[in-house]
Amino acid sequence: MEHNFWITEEPIALNDVIEKVTRREVGAINIFTGTVRELTDGKRTLFLEYDAYKPMAEKKLAQIGQEIKEKWGDAETAIVHRVGRLDISDVAVAIAISTPHRKAAFAASSYAIDRIKEIVPIWKKEHWSDGTQWIGDQKERHSYDKGIPTEEAMGNG
Amino acid sequence: MEHNFWITEEPIALNDVIEKVTRREVGAINIFTGTVRELTDGKRTLFLEYDAYKPMAEKKLAQIGQEIKEKWGDAETAIVHRVGRLDISDVAVAIAISTPHRKAAFAASSYAIDRIKEIVPIWKKEHWSDGTQWIGDQKERHSYDKGIPTEEAMGNG
Repeated sequence: MEHNFWITEEPIALNDVIEKVTRREVGAINIFTGTVRELTDGKRTLFLEYDAYKPMAEKKLAQIGQEIKEKWGDAETAIVHRVGRLDISDVAVAIAISTPHRKAAFAASSYAIDRIKEIVPIWKKEHWSDGTQWIGDQKERHSYDKGIPTEEAMGNG
Repeated sequence: MEHNFWITEEPIALNDVIEKVTRREVGAINIFTGTVRELTDGKRTLFLEYDAYKPMAEKKLAQIGQEIKEKWGDAETAIVHRVGRLDISDVAVAIAISTPHRKAAFAASSYAIDRIKEIVPIWKKEHWSDGTQWIGDQKERHSYDKGIPTEEAMGNG
């Protein structure tokens, strides 16, 4: 199932994500995209850099897909997160979830993005109009003046 | 704003819908698609036909966008519904909603599809493996043996 969960340095093509969850027995597909926002609390972002521990991040994305299957039964999930330099309005993350009925698609999508921010080792470097800052973890509780933590410091998954 | 809300006989291209709501100040875009499901309570659908009173349907879709703006403030909505013959897995309806923060995008998307089924004059004719049936209204509370109701019978909006 892990081919449904990947990190990429290329622009995200939504159709690639949607195709992975399209099935004859589903009536609802929800696609959530997180995009780069220009203004955050009045500060202006020029662009972002995302970095990830790729194998660990893909493993954690797949884990989220498994959690969704356990919680919502007949749900198929695909998630892609982009790394590297992203400009304003670029898609940083896309989540596609197909379910037979629509209520589950919304609930599972909301769960997925919350979990991505909780457990997936991806960081972003803000390039503000007045400086730069590594932000992370994904819940933005910590900033890292000296760059992202080492893989060892994270307990290796 | 009504150019964000339309009925089409062509296959739906999601990028057309997403483009209409992409803005520099948003961090979340949610796209919901309703697709043609093969099995419903064990009955097999071969294909569907959708029909709509187009001007009235577009007006009602725009009304839903307005309701969303009133409820969620800084939300931009686009909705397209396809009519004509649709095969299994074809997208019948696509809703894109952009918001500065993600919780609103999920809530507004769920609201939008519920409202479409409540107020938009669109009907579907099921072509089951063992017969046909016009289903409508959209909440599927009524079936119409003799076809969809006349525009006059609907009170003209």
